[in-house]
Amino acid sequence: MNIRLILKLVGRILLVEAVALALPLMVALLYREDPTPFLISITIVALCGLGLSALPCRNRQFFTREGFVSVGLIWIVTGLVGSLPFQFCGYFATPIDCIFESCSGFTTTGASILTDIEALPKGILFWRSFTHWLGGMGVLVLATAIVPTMGIRSHYLTQAETPGPVFSKLVPKQSQTSKILYSIYFALTALEIICLKIAGMPLYDSFIHAFSSAGTGGFSNRNASVGAYGSVAIEMIITVFILLFSLNFAVYFLLLTRRWKEALGSDELRFFFLVVALSTLVIGVVNLQVYSSIWESLRYAVFQVASIISTTGFATADYVLWPQFSQLILILLMFCGACAGSTGGGIKCSRVLTLLRSIRRELHRITHPRAVEVVKLDGKVVGEDTLHSLLVFVGAYMILVFGAALIISLDGFSFAASFSASLTCVSNVGPGLEVIGPTGNFSAFSGLSKAVMSLCMIAGRLEIFPILMLFSPTAWRRT
Amino acid sequence: MNIRLILKLVGRILLVEAVALALPLMVALLYREDPTPFLISITIVALCGLGLSALPCRNRQFFTREGFVSVGLIWIVTGLVGSLPFQFCGYFATPIDCIFESCSGFTTTGASILTDIEALPKGILFWRSFTHWLGGMGVLVLATAIVPTMGIRSHYLTQAETPGPVFSKLVPKQSQTSKILYSIYFALTALEIICLKIAGMPLYDSFIHAFSSAGTGGFSNRNASVGAYGSVAIEMIITVFILLFSLNFAVYFLLLTRRWKEALGSDELRFFFLVVALSTLVIGVVNLQVYSSIWESLRYAVFQVASIISTTGFATADYVLWPQFSQLILILLMFCGACAGSTGGGIKCSRVLTLLRSIRRELHRITHPRAVEVVKLDGKVVGEDTLHSLLVFVGAYMILVFGAALIISLDGFSFAASFSASLTCVSNVGPGLEVIGPTGNFSAFSGLSKAVMSLCMIAGRLEIFPILMLFSPTAWRRT
Repeated sequence: MNIRLILKLVGRILLVEAVALALPLMVALLYREDPTPFLISITIVALCGLGLSALPCRNRQFFTREGFVSVGLIWIVTGLVGSLPFQFCGYFATPIDCIFESCSGFTTTGASILTDIEALPKGILFWRSFTHWLGGMGVLVLATAIVPTMGIRSHYLTQAETPGPVFSKLVPKQSQTSKILYSIYFALTALEIICLKIAGMPLYDSFIHAFSSAGTGGFSNRNASVGAYGSVAIEMIITVFILLFSLNFAVYFLLLTRRWKEALGSDELRFFFLVVALSTLVIGVVNLQVYSSIWESLRYAVFQVASIISTTGFATADYVLWPQFSQLILILLMFCGACAGSTGGGIKCSRVLTLLRSIRRELHRITHPRAVEVVKLDGKVVGEDTLHSLLVFVGAYMILVFGAALIISLDGFSFAASFSASLTCVSNVGPGLEVIGPTGNFSAFSGLSKAVMSLCMIAGRLEIFPILMLFSPTAWRRT
Repeated sequence: MNIRLILKLVGRILLVEAVALALPLMVALLYREDPTPFLISITIVALCGLGLSALPCRNRQFFTREGFVSVGLIWIVTGLVGSLPFQFCGYFATPIDCIFESCSGFTTTGASILTDIEALPKGILFWRSFTHWLGGMGVLVLATAIVPTMGIRSHYLTQAETPGPVFSKLVPKQSQTSKILYSIYFALTALEIICLKIAGMPLYDSFIHAFSSAGTGGFSNRNASVGAYGSVAIEMIITVFILLFSLNFAVYFLLLTRRWKEALGSDELRFFFLVVALSTLVIGVVNLQVYSSIWESLRYAVFQVASIISTTGFATADYVLWPQFSQLILILLMFCGACAGSTGGGIKCSRVLTLLRSIRRELHRITHPRAVEVVKLDGKVVGEDTLHSLLVFVGAYMILVFGAALIISLDGFSFAASFSASLTCVSNVGPGLEVIGPTGNFSAFSGLSKAVMSLCMIAGRLEIFPILMLFSPTAWRRT
């Protein structure tokens, strides 16, 4: 394990983060708020960054193992570093609360320990949502602009960080792919800010909600989340954009290069929209117990379905008051999550679809033991090794969700609360059931639970294996 | 699909069940109870059995597909037929209640819709527990004595019914294997009856509890289950026997043939006892919040852990009142279940162990992409195809549990109740959380939920695929 080079890399990332912290500093200055939390944070982060970057390191060995360990480490460090402005602003009760909020931000989860969001300064809330935006596309995809200058092949980093192999295929060079992806990301975010402003949202709020949508995070600057605006137009705009940010970004690249058929013929895309449509319809009908008209019911249903499957976690209604059936559909959507190669979390639609096809194949295998049948996605055969990794991933996902729920249950909350807390963190959604519903928050959990949940958010964001690797002896063994 | 031969087979099984119904009839006569429910049932079952068996059928084609469909069909028919005495005794509110209770019996689940068990006649309660005993080793392993006379290779049936390939390996001939297994099963049951009688349990109750232990079912003739006796000796005897019935029966065969090392060196066996010991210890310590001494706490913990992991479902304490942490461990044990090749349900220890080893291998694969590493169990390599099927099975299991929970949640019970109802049925355990805890029952659920749960119990007992096959178009397509 080339620890020096990994630390050097962490140092460079810290420098990027020091620069990123300048933006909320400017917002704080703009609104004539106290800039000290940001000034102290920037100084600490910059000094650590400079120190680590200056580490002498002749050994340039950097392979998959180093890639996975770096990514795990970088995300943990980022979570800690991102919490600094929260630590110094005085609005958070304990250090672990700040770390929880920061991890929730960078991993685009959107779970919060804050009981009164509106009491916080604008600069802090800006940073809170800005972490979503940064975390959305991965601190590291951004870093692919820096990494090549260190002589590290960025392939080993993106392999560990980005879900699925989709990104690297767009164009031959990784750094160019990053540029394309970031341009799309930037353009879509800007478009959402404009749309929200036109629909009547204040400019500051538009930024906050666009950042949170883009990262499919879910932090709002209003206690009642998107519901606070009571505007159908704003709800529709956000619904559309969180769905757009839930799609595989390769789709946009294909659309830009006019490969319509490839872009729109994707199995995952169709599956995603099928699930969204079906869930909306079913919840809409079942919720007629709660709402007076089918249109009102559908309005709240479509927003919540989009918010949960995209793993954003915005709310316009307190779904904890909905029928149990509707709540269970939302839980299933939390497992499923968005498309691979998006900013969303969860198991990912393509994996769920492949699992379903594997089950169908298994049935076929039993009846026709001698036939060789393959599992296909987008008309292409899914290799047996890929299939195997996918199935192991799903198994590991379930074990992580239930294992973390077990530790969280030590706090004595109900089964629904503990389980949904774990699931919503691993899937990077945000709200859960009962006490952690859309109008609730995570403040009542113990420090241990908050630490476990923070780690779960990172594990979920990185699709488990980089974090498992950090704690695995095989990674650290000398070869 | 050779439907005629399948129906003929169903007919033969019905004749066996008519004979089996003679035993509770005798019990009813012994206790001077009304024998009519049994007389009517036997008449109906025997007539249907004779009718179907008499079907002319020249085509002897019977392969894997027919095997799976037969097994699925036979279990559904058995569930329906087993409900007849309940239908005619007048103690059940609706026909679906009777079917639920019968399916719960044959699948060795032990979930009940009865609110006052002690009010029922002794003959009916005897039949209720006897279904556990019959279902435990599979109606069909029993039927392997009949099947060969029909010219069907029983291999195709046991393949679909028994978990894992362990049984067929004992001795070359299937019918001989069945005889060995049934001898062990019979001997252990008899031994338990004797032990319970010596420990002070009434003889009738000893039969009931021994049948329920042997099948790892969980029906008791007392409202307070095993807790009603308040005897440490009885609890210990039952704990030991349900653990014995949770082991792979091949272990006993190996012990009988003095292959000690093979018998006791099994990875699954060690894993099983490790899980039992750890869970007992942890629950014992956490439950000190509820109990006054560590011994009292451990006493209730070990019984409940054994009861749940063996998927029996007996109770000596109302674990719904335990800390959430302890309840969540029980939920995890419900997923895990007993050893493969036992009468217990769940995903099975060997599968859980193999999944954990697959995850470890996945980590190793990432760090050493070129190394060829295999997953081993008992020192033998697990083939990639077997591994693949196992992983698909685990995925299908999770989908079934959450899918069924979704339908059950239409009744409006809490998330914990709906989810645990589904899980306890699929894993063939019996009790769940909250309203369906050890002192609760399933009477409050709707007919739809009860039907879904009945099917889930059968799906769980047959490890999903035979029931999926029944509803799959590929199975019914002409070839």
